[in-house]
Amino acid sequence: MKEMKRLIVDMDDVLTDATGKLIDLYEKEFGVRITRESMNHKEEREKFPDNHEAVYRFVFQKGFFKTMAVNEHSQEVMKELNKKYEVFVVSSAMEFPNSLSEKLEWLNEHFPFLHWKQFVFCGKKSVVHGDYMIDDLPHNLETFNGEKLLYSAPHNLQYNQFKRVNGWKEVESFLLK
Amino acid sequence: MKEMKRLIVDMDDVLTDATGKLIDLYEKEFGVRITRESMNHKEEREKFPDNHEAVYRFVFQKGFFKTMAVNEHSQEVMKELNKKYEVFVVSSAMEFPNSLSEKLEWLNEHFPFLHWKQFVFCGKKSVVHGDYMIDDLPHNLETFNGEKLLYSAPHNLQYNQFKRVNGWKEVESFLLK
Repeated sequence: MKEMKRLIVDMDDVLTDATGKLIDLYEKEFGVRITRESMNHKEEREKFPDNHEAVYRFVFQKGFFKTMAVNEHSQEVMKELNKKYEVFVVSSAMEFPNSLSEKLEWLNEHFPFLHWKQFVFCGKKSVVHGDYMIDDLPHNLETFNGEKLLYSAPHNLQYNQFKRVNGWKEVESFLLK
Repeated sequence: MKEMKRLIVDMDDVLTDATGKLIDLYEKEFGVRITRESMNHKEEREKFPDNHEAVYRFVFQKGFFKTMAVNEHSQEVMKELNKKYEVFVVSSAMEFPNSLSEKLEWLNEHFPFLHWKQFVFCGKKSVVHGDYMIDDLPHNLETFNGEKLLYSAPHNLQYNQFKRVNGWKEVESFLLK
C-alpha cells in the first residue's frame, strides 16, 4: 500500500468556531456584540476593540473549549480526508490547563471517526512534522516543514505569504480533488 | 547562535517511576509485592504475573499520574540538558483522559524549569521529530527520525537494537559530556 501523506490540522478557528465563542462571551460580559468584520486584519489578541485581558481570561473559564461550535463542513470533509491522509489534529492546548480534557471530549463528541492516536496537544507546533498543515496562525505555519495552508480567519487576513483556504469546502477542493 | 539539537524525552518510566507506582497499587489490591526483577524481559503489559486487566485499570484511576515518584537524577540532568538542547517532553497521554491534567501538574511541580511550550501529549509519537529521543518503549523509538536511546526498564531488557541508557547518569554521560 502506498504510504499516506501526513496532514496536520489545527483545532481552534479551524475545526472549532473559537472566535464565535469569544464574541458570545464578550457580549454576555460587556453588552456589545462585536462583528467578525470589525476584526478583519487585526492580530489575534487584538481583534476585540478593548478589554483584551478579559477576553484572554475567557479562555481559562471552565467549559470554554467544550462548548465551541463546529466549523461548517469540517466534519464531512475531515471524514473523507481521514481515508486518504494520515490525519493528526494538533492543538496548542498546554497554555490552558482546563482545555486538555475539554478538547479531548470535544473531539470524541464531534469527530468520533478519529482515533485518540490522532490527537496531539502541545505548546509549540514546531515539534510536529508532516506533509500538510492547516492552521489559522501564521507562526504555527512558519515553523512547519511541509506545505502550509492558512485557514482564513478575521485575524489573519493581513498575511499573504501562505496559500489560503477559505473554509472547509476549499480544503476539500485542494486536498481531495 | 548555533541552533540547538532537539531532544525528545518520554515521561512514564523515564522521568517518572510508573512501574513503581503499579507495584504499589498491585500490592494494595492483591496483597503481593511483585519485584522489579521478576518483570525482567517481559513485555510492558505482561510484566505482572497475573491480573493484567486490573493493572491496566489502575492507570485510569484518578491520581495515578499525579502521584508518581520522580526517577533518580532526572531533575538535575534535565536541568542541564535544557540549557544545551531544545528539550520537549513527549508523552503518550491521550489513551488516559485523566492523565492529561495530572501529567501537566506533575511536570509543573517536578520540572518547574521547563516551559509549557516544551510539553507534548499525544497518542502516537511518530508525529514528532527531533535529533534524539529517550524512551522506554521500542515502538516509540522505531518510528523516530533521529538517534534513539532506549531508557532501561524491566520490560525492555529483551530489546537489543537500540543504544541503551541505564538511568539518568548514563543519559548525562552520553548527551552532556
